[in-house]
Amino acid sequence: MEKKDYQRLNDYNLTMLTDFYEITMANGYFNSENRDAEACFDVFFRRVPDGGGFAIMAGLEQIIAYMKRLKFQDEDIEYLRSKGMFTEDFLEYLKGFEFTCDVWSVPEGYPIFPYEPVMIVKGPLIQAQFVETFILMQFNHQSLIATKANRIVRSAQGRPVMEFGTRRAQGADAAVYGARAAYIAGCVGTACTIADRNHFVPALGTMAHSWIQSFDTEYEAFKVYTEQYPDNATLLIDTYNVLKSGIPNAIKVFKELKPSKMGVRIDSGDITYLTRECRKMLDEAGLTDCKIVVSNSLDEYIIRDVIQEGAEIDSFGVGERLITARSEPVFGGVYKLSGIGQGDKLEPRMKISENVEKITNPGFKKVVRFFDKDNGKALADVIMLRDEEVPNGEPYEIFDPNAVWKRKILDNYEAKELLVQIFDKGRLVYDEPDIEEIKKTCSEQVDTLWGERLRFENPQTYYVDLSKPLWDLKHELLHQYGADNL
Amino acid sequence: MEKKDYQRLNDYNLTMLTDFYEITMANGYFNSENRDAEACFDVFFRRVPDGGGFAIMAGLEQIIAYMKRLKFQDEDIEYLRSKGMFTEDFLEYLKGFEFTCDVWSVPEGYPIFPYEPVMIVKGPLIQAQFVETFILMQFNHQSLIATKANRIVRSAQGRPVMEFGTRRAQGADAAVYGARAAYIAGCVGTACTIADRNHFVPALGTMAHSWIQSFDTEYEAFKVYTEQYPDNATLLIDTYNVLKSGIPNAIKVFKELKPSKMGVRIDSGDITYLTRECRKMLDEAGLTDCKIVVSNSLDEYIIRDVIQEGAEIDSFGVGERLITARSEPVFGGVYKLSGIGQGDKLEPRMKISENVEKITNPGFKKVVRFFDKDNGKALADVIMLRDEEVPNGEPYEIFDPNAVWKRKILDNYEAKELLVQIFDKGRLVYDEPDIEEIKKTCSEQVDTLWGERLRFENPQTYYVDLSKPLWDLKHELLHQYGADNL
Repeated sequence: MEKKDYQRLNDYNLTMLTDFYEITMANGYFNSENRDAEACFDVFFRRVPDGGGFAIMAGLEQIIAYMKRLKFQDEDIEYLRSKGMFTEDFLEYLKGFEFTCDVWSVPEGYPIFPYEPVMIVKGPLIQAQFVETFILMQFNHQSLIATKANRIVRSAQGRPVMEFGTRRAQGADAAVYGARAAYIAGCVGTACTIADRNHFVPALGTMAHSWIQSFDTEYEAFKVYTEQYPDNATLLIDTYNVLKSGIPNAIKVFKELKPSKMGVRIDSGDITYLTRECRKMLDEAGLTDCKIVVSNSLDEYIIRDVIQEGAEIDSFGVGERLITARSEPVFGGVYKLSGIGQGDKLEPRMKISENVEKITNPGFKKVVRFFDKDNGKALADVIMLRDEEVPNGEPYEIFDPNAVWKRKILDNYEAKELLVQIFDKGRLVYDEPDIEEIKKTCSEQVDTLWGERLRFENPQTYYVDLSKPLWDLKHELLHQYGADNL
Repeated sequence: MEKKDYQRLNDYNLTMLTDFYEITMANGYFNSENRDAEACFDVFFRRVPDGGGFAIMAGLEQIIAYMKRLKFQDEDIEYLRSKGMFTEDFLEYLKGFEFTCDVWSVPEGYPIFPYEPVMIVKGPLIQAQFVETFILMQFNHQSLIATKANRIVRSAQGRPVMEFGTRRAQGADAAVYGARAAYIAGCVGTACTIADRNHFVPALGTMAHSWIQSFDTEYEAFKVYTEQYPDNATLLIDTYNVLKSGIPNAIKVFKELKPSKMGVRIDSGDITYLTRECRKMLDEAGLTDCKIVVSNSLDEYIIRDVIQEGAEIDSFGVGERLITARSEPVFGGVYKLSGIGQGDKLEPRMKISENVEKITNPGFKKVVRFFDKDNGKALADVIMLRDEEVPNGEPYEIFDPNAVWKRKILDNYEAKELLVQIFDKGRLVYDEPDIEEIKKTCSEQVDTLWGERLRFENPQTYYVDLSKPLWDLKHELLHQYGADNL
């Protein structure tokens, strides 16, 4: 089927999906000395959810769609005028608003780490400020779900994981873009039909308990279904009693109708015990091809445990705990000013805080990832100032920015710049990958991480260091701001 | 400003936002003896999130919008045909699909309790089954946020609470409908601009740290802002140092410019200590009118604690912990078949389960809430069969359905049927209240609950009982299904 451009965000102008303060600030800048100021903002996050070792970058495609369509409609202007807070000059400016920023981003699917810029927006202060809310919302949501889904997929050790959470998602976009993020991160498909139609995430699904209940007997319900779907007869066997009723009826129907693909799904009860008993009964009936699917309040910990206990499971359907990232449903991406100026030359800025981990990194930057030349494994990321050269093979010393005596020389590496340009003065210059390419990128790039960084709890921390010039700039500014006296 | 009908869901046909199994089942029913079956489904939930005593019904307006627009477009049919799983007859049927169900619902804003039907859909099996996914998604999401927001609002003991979470919401709809649900449940407004424009949830907001950083000094940033917004100058005072820099600069600007409304906002640090010090400094400067707003990772527990500690706070901005219901981000609403038949006469059905709390209540039902005639307090809810009369003042005996010896006679009550009809054979017959009416309903109806049911933890359980006829029917069916032998 040809690719259709009926993606949700594309249909809808989301310019007004923004915090109100972006507009009060925009009007404020417009009517002050900052009207023509240029600025640079970094998107980064401070903590991996669930105490994991890395997150997965996601949401860029929708951020691009948003930026391409950024435009104030007459009804927006009229609405803003009704607030009685904004000058007519400013509303006139909004009418002609055109997005002309430069944007860099880590591509979707890449592992990302705390404190490194994963997106940079540079351009007129008013514009670069305005896009904050939408960027954060989209990045936070999709990266949250991709990160969680990747944990769950890894826990299944190669068994397919389906995303089943639409009914528990926090709204329509949470269902659709959650399914997209989960697919990127390794799920094999979704229950969400519109995510298939619009985003090419394969949708699958067979029956609910109500199917079984709507027929006079379980046997009849199984039979009617299998007759109609002989190529994918996955029967839900726990409506009455899995071992006394569900499995015997399923076996009877499979033997009578011999579907080409068959499976049973269990949605309640003790997974380990039930799947082992089911496997035995199926095998004894000669149905060794019949797959067993389970789907009851699963997450990475339960999946890990039941596999370890010897549960006989061929694939998993994961609902609410994936689609809401239940164990930690917030991804804390932030958007911080790193430079400001009146022309092309930006003065570096940073946020000082009594809270040390809330101090930001100043200046217009880049991020370089070092890979081991021999085995391709990721060694460290270094945040650099924009005008620094990407190291080219010569020995490169990295050091812990908080414990500067901890040093290490990298000498057998390939260095790769992580942030690629997306918009050049508002013009899209990025060749957008399709979802299959993004999924492949994710799988390949997660494979560049050593096993100890993939651990669900207490993973080894990946190095994210500052280059010497950036570290020096930061400390000079801390001194200048008098942070040593605060 | 006149009410505009540019609500998001209204613009977009969400028919395909459905679990794929709804479609495989629909095709299955269509091509079986169940083609013309009639059915009845209940929406209910089993547990109040966060261990609270009640939830708040929300999401009906968007469910109505969805049902009104339910229609398969040519591109949907084409997409479904490409799956190669559905019969042409069925696809032809979808082309002409028209929603003709009867729907009843508890109105938005009402407290609702575990196990009682909060919505009932009755009509052709294929249709009534199909709407499951969207109903659950919307009901689960908005009720989750309304329930959480109501807890947070109550913790603030009359101080205004603003919803500030757009950037951490799980997608665009989570931001917009989350803001809507929060407003219904008692928040005074939102940061989300589009929720104001489309749903009349008042949006507010002033400045980010970047505003302060974009000027040469904090003083200048405050001054420029206050000059431009003399009617609402709320200054963010924690960019550098609250007590040494933020508050002195704010006081200086307020004394120079005398804005008609002024406030300071603190977004980091120890709230109790900082607000008490700020209050002292503001009062000593004669600025007793200046409000103090706080907004750093708040929820009902932190708000309760800081108020108890004597923090000097006039209003709260609550972000991620409200908009994602962080402490428990899933509302477990389910959709269960309660009756099926070939004509108007439905045979009652129920789901048996080894898990006792997963056994459902059979039959086409209603819910009656009993209020004390003297003080208006809610006494109990009773789930009845549809053809039972609503008690009319005569003594009415209620009993615990799981401990039937626990009995109580109600004799000074007014009984009110909770479920009101929304659709009659697909025609909207409900006069939809606007958001202000819903908000008022919520406030009034939460007030009908005794204080011990409002407790955040370990609240007293509200009675949700079964009528004698319903209890009898359930036990007869349990026996019939042989559940006593499972």
